[in-house]
Amino acid sequence: MSSSTGPALQVYDTTLRDGAQQEGLNLTVHDKLAIARHLDELGVGFIEGGWPGANPRDTEFFDRAEQELDLKNAVFTAFGSTRRAHAKASEDAQVRALLDSQAKAITLVAKSHTGHVARALRTTKDENLAMIEDTIRFLTGEGRRVFLDAEHFFDGFELDRAYALEVVRRSMEAGAEVVALCDTNGGMLPASITEVVQEVIAETGAQLGIHCHNDTGCAVANSLAAVGAGVVQVQGTVNGYGERTGNANLLTVMSNLQLKMGQQVVEPEHLQEATRIAHAIGEITNVPPIGRMPYVGASAFAHKAGLHASALKVDPDLYQHTDPGHVGNAMRTLVSNMAGRASIELKAREMGVDLAGRPELQQQIVTRVKELELRGYTFDAADASFELLMQREMTGEPIRYCEVESWRVIAEARGDQGEAISEATVKVSAGGRRIVATGEGNGPVNALDEGLRSALAEIYPEIDGFELIDYKVRILDSSHGTDATTHVLLEMAGDSTSWTTVGVAPNIVEASWIALLEALTYGLWRKGVPVR
Amino acid sequence: MSSSTGPALQVYDTTLRDGAQQEGLNLTVHDKLAIARHLDELGVGFIEGGWPGANPRDTEFFDRAEQELDLKNAVFTAFGSTRRAHAKASEDAQVRALLDSQAKAITLVAKSHTGHVARALRTTKDENLAMIEDTIRFLTGEGRRVFLDAEHFFDGFELDRAYALEVVRRSMEAGAEVVALCDTNGGMLPASITEVVQEVIAETGAQLGIHCHNDTGCAVANSLAAVGAGVVQVQGTVNGYGERTGNANLLTVMSNLQLKMGQQVVEPEHLQEATRIAHAIGEITNVPPIGRMPYVGASAFAHKAGLHASALKVDPDLYQHTDPGHVGNAMRTLVSNMAGRASIELKAREMGVDLAGRPELQQQIVTRVKELELRGYTFDAADASFELLMQREMTGEPIRYCEVESWRVIAEARGDQGEAISEATVKVSAGGRRIVATGEGNGPVNALDEGLRSALAEIYPEIDGFELIDYKVRILDSSHGTDATTHVLLEMAGDSTSWTTVGVAPNIVEASWIALLEALTYGLWRKGVPVR
Repeated sequence: MSSSTGPALQVYDTTLRDGAQQEGLNLTVHDKLAIARHLDELGVGFIEGGWPGANPRDTEFFDRAEQELDLKNAVFTAFGSTRRAHAKASEDAQVRALLDSQAKAITLVAKSHTGHVARALRTTKDENLAMIEDTIRFLTGEGRRVFLDAEHFFDGFELDRAYALEVVRRSMEAGAEVVALCDTNGGMLPASITEVVQEVIAETGAQLGIHCHNDTGCAVANSLAAVGAGVVQVQGTVNGYGERTGNANLLTVMSNLQLKMGQQVVEPEHLQEATRIAHAIGEITNVPPIGRMPYVGASAFAHKAGLHASALKVDPDLYQHTDPGHVGNAMRTLVSNMAGRASIELKAREMGVDLAGRPELQQQIVTRVKELELRGYTFDAADASFELLMQREMTGEPIRYCEVESWRVIAEARGDQGEAISEATVKVSAGGRRIVATGEGNGPVNALDEGLRSALAEIYPEIDGFELIDYKVRILDSSHGTDATTHVLLEMAGDSTSWTTVGVAPNIVEASWIALLEALTYGLWRKGVPVR
Repeated sequence: MSSSTGPALQVYDTTLRDGAQQEGLNLTVHDKLAIARHLDELGVGFIEGGWPGANPRDTEFFDRAEQELDLKNAVFTAFGSTRRAHAKASEDAQVRALLDSQAKAITLVAKSHTGHVARALRTTKDENLAMIEDTIRFLTGEGRRVFLDAEHFFDGFELDRAYALEVVRRSMEAGAEVVALCDTNGGMLPASITEVVQEVIAETGAQLGIHCHNDTGCAVANSLAAVGAGVVQVQGTVNGYGERTGNANLLTVMSNLQLKMGQQVVEPEHLQEATRIAHAIGEITNVPPIGRMPYVGASAFAHKAGLHASALKVDPDLYQHTDPGHVGNAMRTLVSNMAGRASIELKAREMGVDLAGRPELQQQIVTRVKELELRGYTFDAADASFELLMQREMTGEPIRYCEVESWRVIAEARGDQGEAISEATVKVSAGGRRIVATGEGNGPVNALDEGLRSALAEIYPEIDGFELIDYKVRILDSSHGTDATTHVLLEMAGDSTSWTTVGVAPNIVEASWIALLEALTYGLWRKGVPVR
């Protein structure tokens, strides 16, 4: 990492653990693996994966992460608690689960607030210190890097300064690499953060980290204040996910540090992925990214045209606080959506298509994308649909492996909560024949998938290798309830890769059908299967 | 206002002017009048209404505001620009429109950045100073209070410190009451704000204000830093509305000032309206308030229960940074997958049900919740479903307004991307009759909603007042694609409140049906409608 001001600052991401505490957020193991890959591309130093042993899903995640993730930048980290009171660290099942996770770094959460020691932990101040020391010594003895999260530190410091400082001192003595001061209830303001961090460093000489929540709307500023006061690790979550008002938004913190404060926390090309990654993770969590998010939000560099439009075009520096390209975002003049010629060209290049010398074709694709975006399409997460769109504009012809005559799905149930059944009928022409096929399933999309596969299987046996692995639904313009537009993302796997398509329609089944047909089409086309 | 530390700080709201610049926000005159009434109830000192003369809607608004608004706390303020170059202020149509608005206070926007003077205003530095002086003198001469918004001040100060200071000095000499320093492009961080504000006060002795945008995620902290450095007026918008990343969220700024910094900016009972007003204004703007908003968001005081539930019940202060009652919000316990008896009891208490003396019932509810959670249910966002579950366990009987015999939905389309149609048939018994009803819709859930309403409308006319306002779908365990479990959250509104239910099933239509039936059931039950 290197460069400019002093020792490198550690960027520590806790999206998968503390971020996952957000109300309504529910991540599968598959989701967590996908998010971890994005975080690694962002260039963060540490990815806190969860609490192995605390729930079966996190335990499974650590097993699969060990096998499936090949991290290039980040160190994978397990989160857990200090040993139970009056137990041996080596015999504590929870502590052993941390070791078993195989994570090279372990972050221990510990009490530093005497009120919490007495009333939540229900033990003595001395035993709490022993629990911290023992657990750190045991884990470092097993060769792991250990960080300590000092929970409720700032309130604890106000209540009993000496004890809070003692927790920091004893943790460092026992071998903790960094002690992160946590503003667990999020009530701090920057000026007090500066004061406390400076004082803790002066008193203990410890290597500190900072972990902020946004309850005063100051999580980012609080994190920056702590960095200014000398912490060496800054924790946060992508998109500011987290319990209550969320954690410090790590993308905002990183952007400010790197673009405003001269601290190179990641390589510039990693930061340029920030906008893409914020949105990709939003797709996985199914929490639409807030348009007003600093740096990476869809509106972050959107200017209402009018008064200053021409000045804006000539002198964007007069109106923008930074170059949006640094975070992979773009200036946007309202009303016009994301697509510009430059980004289309870039995207095409990613896909191995050179559009550099073809401005008219670029313009034609931009126009088509804008048209579709107006109707609710987004292509950020649907590369396969975008590639098919490009092919269509380049050749003037859509790729069609069959002609669709009609489809129909019936879903029905008897009784109050009886099991519903679904049945689909698909009528298509392919290989010179008209085919009528039916599919049954436990849901309408499943039935359609079965029906369409069964219709095409004889002519295109290649589709047997494809499998639908993810399906996401978002309701756009939700103020109209069920009367709104539906946005479906569908991920299909085959030949050891996977691809995503998008479908948009007022009808959720129709949107799914569009995405489904496109997913099978893309799979056949990229395999080089000829139309039969 | 008065009290504690020094002179009263002016709270200046610009929701109706700068906030209205937000992408997608479009306010009618009626909307603006309704918002102004709420702002007055919040106790702000100034309400900036818009730019009379700049567009007909704002001109009409000022006319009607003069007649219809009877403000108790706030001074109504018009926003406009300094006179044109080389014109007389008294003869400038735009300046006259400000006078004609009858507003007692006028805020003039002016350039303080030499680059903007040259390249956007296209005039000389001296003429810009003359424009500022002339316009202020003319308007104060007509008996108006005048504020000056120094646009792009911080960038201007960095570029040409002497000129930026001269703008402040000349404005004060000409009679401006306050000069607000604007971080127009939002690129500042708190430490630099403190430095610049201190320096401007030291050099000019002026009465300063602060106007921040959130492009670094620090608008709130920047505003507080300016107050700390001595400004006497703080500007912002409700819910942080505004162009790009928005303006400083005035509710967060006010709450921090009053609850954390000992500045009484409004009466305590006004601040207690903050949560209600944030949501009421969200209804008017049709921008749903962000749940994670500090202080006033729906999630701001929501705690995942489980581990700490018992401590939370006894000692909320251990986990909350302030009493949510100060801003009219409330603590909320999320029934998450770590649900224990303590959290169930807490949740019941929130709903007005006392389970304290009934440990067996508590245990029974915990068991039932865990059972449902294993099947994919989550209750943290579905209070209505949870309340119905509690009622069922307490009485031993589910609440049923009808007996369901069967339901069926057909979705079909002809051709490749032809428009799909949906039709539902619902068979129920209610009021002693068997009813068969059909519903049509642009999607299966919409069709079911229509069918079920049409079946029940005659027996339960009360449901006419209910409206489906939000519908969210999440696929659980998405690694199985369309073969996975579907989780539906459905929000229904009626009688000026709203409630959320959850449905889970392998079949997306079935999950929607469960949530839909429960939403109608809950609506009828909370209204006290008897089973007929």
